[in-house]
Order: sequence, then C-alpha cells, then structure tokens
Amino acid sequence: MGESRVGFCGLGTMGLAMAANLVRSGFRLTIWNRTPDRAAELIELGASQASSPREVAAESDMVVVCVSDTPDVEAVIFGPQGLAEGARTGTLIIDCSTISPSATRQFAERLAERGIPMVDAPVSGGSEGAQAGTLTIMVGGGDDDFHRARPVLAAMGRSITHMGPVGAGQATKAVNQVILCGTYLGVAEGVLLAMRSGLDVEQVVEALSGGAARSWVLENRSGRMIADEYALGFKVSLHLKDVLIALAMGRDAGVALPVAALTAQLESGLVAAGHGDEDVSVLARAVRSMSEP
Amino acid sequence: MGESRVGFCGLGTMGLAMAANLVRSGFRLTIWNRTPDRAAELIELGASQASSPREVAAESDMVVVCVSDTPDVEAVIFGPQGLAEGARTGTLIIDCSTISPSATRQFAERLAERGIPMVDAPVSGGSEGAQAGTLTIMVGGGDDDFHRARPVLAAMGRSITHMGPVGAGQATKAVNQVILCGTYLGVAEGVLLAMRSGLDVEQVVEALSGGAARSWVLENRSGRMIADEYALGFKVSLHLKDVLIALAMGRDAGVALPVAALTAQLESGLVAAGHGDEDVSVLARAVRSMSEP
Repeated sequence: MGESRVGFCGLGTMGLAMAANLVRSGFRLTIWNRTPDRAAELIELGASQASSPREVAAESDMVVVCVSDTPDVEAVIFGPQGLAEGARTGTLIIDCSTISPSATRQFAERLAERGIPMVDAPVSGGSEGAQAGTLTIMVGGGDDDFHRARPVLAAMGRSITHMGPVGAGQATKAVNQVILCGTYLGVAEGVLLAMRSGLDVEQVVEALSGGAARSWVLENRSGRMIADEYALGFKVSLHLKDVLIALAMGRDAGVALPVAALTAQLESGLVAAGHGDEDVSVLARAVRSMSEP
Repeated sequence: MGESRVGFCGLGTMGLAMAANLVRSGFRLTIWNRTPDRAAELIELGASQASSPREVAAESDMVVVCVSDTPDVEAVIFGPQGLAEGARTGTLIIDCSTISPSATRQFAERLAERGIPMVDAPVSGGSEGAQAGTLTIMVGGGDDDFHRARPVLAAMGRSITHMGPVGAGQATKAVNQVILCGTYLGVAEGVLLAMRSGLDVEQVVEALSGGAARSWVLENRSGRMIADEYALGFKVSLHLKDVLIALAMGRDAGVALPVAALTAQLESGLVAAGHGDEDVSVLARAVRSMSEP
C-alpha cells in the first residue's frame, strides 16, 4: 500500500461502518468525530483518535469526510481547526458525504488554490452496504486523484465508478435519489391498492417480482410497507435532504421533476409528523394517510 | 395431455405469439380473430381457423381470450355468435386480456349461470415475453379451474400464480401497472436530470444498476429514453387503459393513488399528441416536454 495513512472525519451510522472496514483492510487510520465517544469501537480495532480535523489532516496522506450536509462538510474542511489548516500540498480529501454538486465544485476550487486536491465520492447502499463493504460509490474528480482514492474506496465499496470531473459523483447520487422517489411511490401505491383490494399482498409481491415491476425497492422494502414498520435502512430525513439537492440541481439545469417534487412534499410532511428517523419506505405511510379518516 | 383441444380468440401482437406457443406445445388449436388474415401464420403451424367465437367454443375444451378491453371481452363471450353460445357445460374460458376486475366478476357470474367456468389470467412481460413464452401470468378463479388451465398457461408463461378467486388475477395486474407508473416516472426524471446536467447518462445507468435504484425499467427501458426512440415493448395507450382500470379499482377500494393519477394524465396527453402506439417508456418524452420551450 503506497499511501497507508488515512484520516476519517464523521463517525455516523455510515461513517463508523466505513471506517471500520478501512482499519480491517490494513490502513493506519486517524479518526475524528464531533462527538468523541463514537470512536471507542475503532480505537479498539487500532485507530488513533485526533482532537480536530486539522490534526487528522496533519497525520494523513488522504482524508475521508462522511458527514450529513453541505454546511457540515464546509465546517470540517474550512472551519477553525479544519482539514485545510492541517493539510499539506497534495493531501487528498475524499468527500463521501452526499451534498450539493455546485457547493462541491466551489469547495474544490477553494482547496485547489491551496494545492489541496479533492474528489467527491458519495455512496449508496445504506447501512447494510456500509457494514458489508458493498457500497456503490460514484466519484467525481481528476484522473490522478481518482486513482489515488481508489484503494481506499475499494475497502468500503464494491462498485466504484469514476463519473467525471469534481461534482459528477454528487450529480450521479442526486440522479439515484430521484429514481428512488418514483420507485418508492410506485411500490407504495401498489402495495396499498393490493392491501385494500383484499389480495394476499405478499403473494402479489412474489408474483410481480419476476416481471417488469421488479425493483430493489419492491424486493427489499415492500415488506416494511406491508408490516407498516419502517426500521432503517436509510433515514427519510436524509433522503429528503438529497431530494432537495436534486430539485435545486434540476432548477439549475432547467428541468421540472414532478414526482421528485411530490416526494419532497410527502417527506417534509413525514419529518414534521415525527417520522424523520424512520426508513425512506415510510413514504408508504404518507400515501396511505391520504385515504385515511 | 388430458384436454388438448384449445381455442384462442384474439390474435393481436400478444395473442398471436401466445397462440403460436400453444401450437408448438402440441395443443390442437382452433383460432378466431376479428381480422381473419392474422391467422395465416398459425394455420401454417397446424391450427384450424373458425368463423366465430361460437365455433371456437364448439371445437374446444378450453378457450383462451386475449383481446384489448372490457367491451371486447364482453363481445367475444356474450355477443351474437359468442363463446357462450358454442360452449358446453364445463367448457373453461381463460381470459388473458387485461380488463376491469369488477367486470370480470360480473362476466364470471353470468357464465356460471350457464355452467361455464371462467378464470381471469392477465399476463405481464410484453411482446418479448409473449414470443419467448416467459410471461408472468396472474390467475383468478376456483382451484379446480386453475388446475385445468395450468398446462395451457404453462405453454405461454414462466411464472404462473393463483392469486385468489375470480377477479384476483386482474386486481394483481392492476397493482403491477400502478407500480410501473412510479418506476417509469422515476427513471424518466432521473435520466432527464442526468442528461441535462452534463453527465454521461449511460455510465450513470450502469453505475446505479447495482444499487437501490435498480429496476427492470432502469435496466431495460432507460436506453429508449436516452435515445428518445420508443419502439415496442408495450403500447402506452394500453398502459393508460390499465391505469384507468387501476384508478377505478382504487376508487372502489377507497384509496388515492397520486402518482398513478399523474401518469394517467401524462399518458392521456401522449395519446392525444399521437404517441399512443409507442412504448410506455415514451413517458420520458412527456416529462421532458414539461421543461421545453
């Protein structure tokens, strides 16, 4: 391994599992999280804990960032004691958060002025994929930077694709979230119609899974909709954040996305009603509640 | 084969391919179509042509019906020279058309009064599936009738499921079409966003096909959306007919189906604009046209 000193900032559900896979793959890991006690499990595995992103950058050749939203990424990189203060020329920042493509391009420009390269590498596959190291990772950045990041990403994901220049990874992730909007709502409406029409809905799902209605959502999430229990998975509040990014990207690109917009409305309602920490499949509850007294 | 004399009424794109698979499987086939010259290919394979549905029924132990819509099924069964006039007690009618579940139950009741059993057996899988004999078939009817119909259905499809009493096959097909609404619109919006954001959209489809956005539509229909050419497949005018059936079923069951309703509106617009004979994936054109001058 040419560059084995890797930093990791952001130990949420996704980040913690991804960082654990990096330690297990033999990287010398320096970690930081806003809440330091999240690090205990990784320290046991052999990771070192730093007191700031700046210190992480000083100890690392490459640093993975995995936080929630655009302002969080900005704070970790450019805040006081941020990565930019500790990085040297050539320290590669790998942002695995899902944030705005246009903000990503701005961050990369600001970093480039200091000689610090960055790639965006948002992931898909949920907490199951993070734990199993089977994430789909969509990367934006220069060729050389992509090749430097590849061994690190390969320890966390199974399908790693270089989508284009900086921002292209985030744009691809936004497309993924838009496709999911329609797929989730289609399955939610179908499950609801089947249940209310007196069909054996589990048998319906099985019968349709071999045909044109087949999808990952039908196979893996219709069960939660039928049971009306929405264990994670992937939080609907985070999907909402991603859909809002996609809608802003749509406005920039001049395209109307009606089903994504409807999904954002339904998800906003779910978050307001206290369901934000449930799985995205809770969209079925929103659809069902339209026809309830 | 206990009952080898099978009739077939309705030789459209689907029916012709399905009837050919029945002859190839060794059934003694008697066929009828409103337009008689559609029968030439089947006569060459060994089928006999009848001059009316009544004559088909008189020559058959079981009769498959595969026509476009509820009034067509009613005419073939109950019209002058219809199946009901030629059938004997026990002649089994297998309706592979996609029609209203409630009309299906009414037809079955009227037939039962004459001692003629019926199963509804709508299919999914498009013209490719009809030709390859790999259709998904969803069956409603009594147990004995299902078991009688099974060998005939097995010659035309790969996945054959008994969903419940008469009408349950049609209800399941309606659920299938509702799920497709969301899946098609999600993929259409995603493809549009990718194209307008400067991404390599074919690479995007490939990158996402391993993850949660995976679906039959993404894998098999995004290419038509990218090329903006919508070869069949399955006609959008027929999908619209099916979605309208599902929406009526939703009203009966007391459920709102917002994405299915939006899809029906977009498809109505496409049909009015002369695109009714194109593949359902032409929904991508409707989505795109929302953002065009």
